[in-house]
Amino acid sequence: MDIDPIFPLGIKNEAYKQYFIGDSYLSILSKDIGLLSFNVTFEPGCRNNWHVHHKGGQVLFCTAGFGWYQEEGKPPRLLKPGDVVEIPAGTNHWHGATKDSWFSHIAINVPAKDGTVEWKEPVTDEEYAKLKE
Amino acid sequence: MDIDPIFPLGIKNEAYKQYFIGDSYLSILSKDIGLLSFNVTFEPGCRNNWHVHHKGGQVLFCTAGFGWYQEEGKPPRLLKPGDVVEIPAGTNHWHGATKDSWFSHIAINVPAKDGTVEWKEPVTDEEYAKLKE
Repeated sequence: MDIDPIFPLGIKNEAYKQYFIGDSYLSILSKDIGLLSFNVTFEPGCRNNWHVHHKGGQVLFCTAGFGWYQEEGKPPRLLKPGDVVEIPAGTNHWHGATKDSWFSHIAINVPAKDGTVEWKEPVTDEEYAKLKE
Repeated sequence: MDIDPIFPLGIKNEAYKQYFIGDSYLSILSKDIGLLSFNVTFEPGCRNNWHVHHKGGQVLFCTAGFGWYQEEGKPPRLLKPGDVVEIPAGTNHWHGATKDSWFSHIAINVPAKDGTVEWKEPVTDEEYAKLKE
């Protein structure tokens, strides 16, 4: 790994493996006082499937490496350390590393009663290969 | 400044100056989808006054430099990059930089209806001088 993820790397993300292309690592950073947050680290080329947060959105705080964020129907956004992404509830989107870089972000779930995540189709190799840094 | 705060430094924190000893810098990182978060950067020796978050607590994500967190009646905790602090609502506490280091953390307010902050007395030079790294 050629980045310092700053926050704990955690364990290989087997729990959500079915919703990712490539390997990622996950650690829970907070959960005790009503704010659920994770550190997510993606290997180069790794990205999650298109997905929607229902009821409560999610905020990403990019801490290391380079990545992508894309909302359905919008151009992809190249992410670098210090970038913040506010993902509204109900927005179909995906995020992950660039093809050549590891990428870490903190992900914070906006608290919401009965919030859920709806996982959709993968970002295909063809779609991903079109991304231009 | 001998650290990279990673997230935007923002402006000199004049708005809350009365509740700090020393200079700090503040930028708002998110506010649009129900999660209010800030980047706070403290110059060496800078700390905020004792204070209490009512209704909703706060979570700190330490990103650069070294700092302190202390809850009333508990030993001070030395903070480094990658540390996370969950501050429950109703807990009297303070945070800030060590005497020799700049310090940056993201601070996220746990959303709560009618949440408030109650600011109290400063951490005196005498109390602060007793801290041992």
